[in-house]
Amino acid sequence: MKGRILTGDTPTGKLHLGHYVGTLENRVKLQRDYKTFIILADLHALTTLSSDPKIISEYTYQVALDNLAVGLDPEKVNIFVESRIPEIYELAAIFSMYVSHTRSLRNPTVKDEIVSKGQGEHFSLGFINYPIFQAADILCVKANLVPVGVDQVAHLEQTREIARDINRVVGEDIFPIAEALVGKVGKLVGTDGNPKMGKSLGNCIYLSDSEEVVNKKVMGMYTDPKRIHPTDPGRVENNPVFIYHDVFNSNKTEVGDLKERYKKGTVGDIEVKEKLAKALNVFLDPIRKRRAHYEKNKDLVMDILDTGTKRTREITIETLNELKSKIGLQ
Amino acid sequence: MKGRILTGDTPTGKLHLGHYVGTLENRVKLQRDYKTFIILADLHALTTLSSDPKIISEYTYQVALDNLAVGLDPEKVNIFVESRIPEIYELAAIFSMYVSHTRSLRNPTVKDEIVSKGQGEHFSLGFINYPIFQAADILCVKANLVPVGVDQVAHLEQTREIARDINRVVGEDIFPIAEALVGKVGKLVGTDGNPKMGKSLGNCIYLSDSEEVVNKKVMGMYTDPKRIHPTDPGRVENNPVFIYHDVFNSNKTEVGDLKERYKKGTVGDIEVKEKLAKALNVFLDPIRKRRAHYEKNKDLVMDILDTGTKRTREITIETLNELKSKIGLQ
Repeated sequence: MKGRILTGDTPTGKLHLGHYVGTLENRVKLQRDYKTFIILADLHALTTLSSDPKIISEYTYQVALDNLAVGLDPEKVNIFVESRIPEIYELAAIFSMYVSHTRSLRNPTVKDEIVSKGQGEHFSLGFINYPIFQAADILCVKANLVPVGVDQVAHLEQTREIARDINRVVGEDIFPIAEALVGKVGKLVGTDGNPKMGKSLGNCIYLSDSEEVVNKKVMGMYTDPKRIHPTDPGRVENNPVFIYHDVFNSNKTEVGDLKERYKKGTVGDIEVKEKLAKALNVFLDPIRKRRAHYEKNKDLVMDILDTGTKRTREITIETLNELKSKIGLQ
Repeated sequence: MKGRILTGDTPTGKLHLGHYVGTLENRVKLQRDYKTFIILADLHALTTLSSDPKIISEYTYQVALDNLAVGLDPEKVNIFVESRIPEIYELAAIFSMYVSHTRSLRNPTVKDEIVSKGQGEHFSLGFINYPIFQAADILCVKANLVPVGVDQVAHLEQTREIARDINRVVGEDIFPIAEALVGKVGKLVGTDGNPKMGKSLGNCIYLSDSEEVVNKKVMGMYTDPKRIHPTDPGRVENNPVFIYHDVFNSNKTEVGDLKERYKKGTVGDIEVKEKLAKALNVFLDPIRKRRAHYEKNKDLVMDILDTGTKRTREITIETLNELKSKIGLQ
């Protein structure tokens, strides 16, 4: 084992292709080499769902399915539910004493999300605490590698600062300085051309979408807006349809051929999109099959979460006790 | 039983006369009528002791002794150590999602403390979270009465708001709207004439001070600064020595006589102070005796804390599970 991985998802919706290329792909790839912990950060979900919290537990289940569907092996990885480990929050409470208020407000991801979620002045204290909760999630299992999307790198920087500060206070390296591992596509463009595929933007292809839904979404995709007729030469750079072809179509000859013809104006959008939809469905099919298997065995999924949570909690309690004894809180 | 009391202390030093009149006196008086929970908020102490945390566990023990010394009956009340109940922090994390960041910054006690502790821009996120942690402390046992010093009333207002907000979200009154009970002297003047007796101000008479120390502190007290000679007429209003006489000297005839003569200029400061020192020592003697008893039985004190913490944790887990199930986090 090369170390420990902590990563996961805030269950505010099902996971999509952006999650796959940002982090899920790395999770699957590295599960053999790293002791892996996947967090279902249900309490974090309250930062956006505080007035409609009942939906969170359904999303938590769906996201667990998504993680299993992409090929995480429950025999190897620990998938756990954050809100069933209260010690994580005590860890966060201790960390919050070591982070200045102004530092939290300077966090670029926090700033971006205040804008992108239209929170104005109305964001909660929990929203400002988010990076501290995340530090607790990562450090509770002393993870040294964190596969994340590019927008989470600033949060991880705060985790690294907290680890350094605490190590200095206790005079010992009790926490690792975790590294971010950004996926092959740090931020995937949405179907509408928005630079980010995001649940709240309505521009996602979900890992759980059926073949029909994928076909429909792909046929409605944003392409080169200047191209009116199939005979107009088009741009493949920054064109969402070709970005997806590059990422998800394993037939590189086909992709090369489509690009050539698109630039020359000898292929229609429809053919490009139909081939993309086909490639995406080839990519998604094994994911759908595994998902269907787990959907039929809800008890099995619950057992997987119970076991993962129990194991993670044991480690978290050890970490918390170690920290408290080193700082003298006992 | 008329309900539940939650109150307690942040162990950043031993308790003093200001704590006694602000809250301890009420704790003792009400312990028969209310199911009482006394928190030793050791993790809160990190807001001011984050770089020197090792001293907190000693202060926690000292504050436990102070509470037992004033006459709290460990058979009746639950004295507990906050940092041994991780569920309190999960409760706080949930609450933080229901409090706006700007609301936290408007808290007058938070504002005052930023100034009085000279924190400038350097206060921690934990400092801003303080009133939310306090809400969790109070609501974890569903307390409906909180004996506090006057400077804590604003924090309690935030607890009341949180309780109302959560009750509204879950559509049920799961939390009581707790009332503050300010002691007979909401804020006791310091020995130096500062309006507040405070650990950080060096103007305290501690409940654990010996007779000699009390005598010395009283003889050095600030009185009427305009009175130079014992024959000058003096002011008794806002004069710390007479404020203490009013509060702690049970011989009201003696106090009346001293006031008369002070106003006329027929008594010296020395006599007034000697009589105050005597009265304070009469007041403190039974407290010292009980303290000495518990100091000799450290194991007994530890057992009291273990039992109180265990009982409080059971109730907290029930409260947390109820809240999570009502908001749908399971």
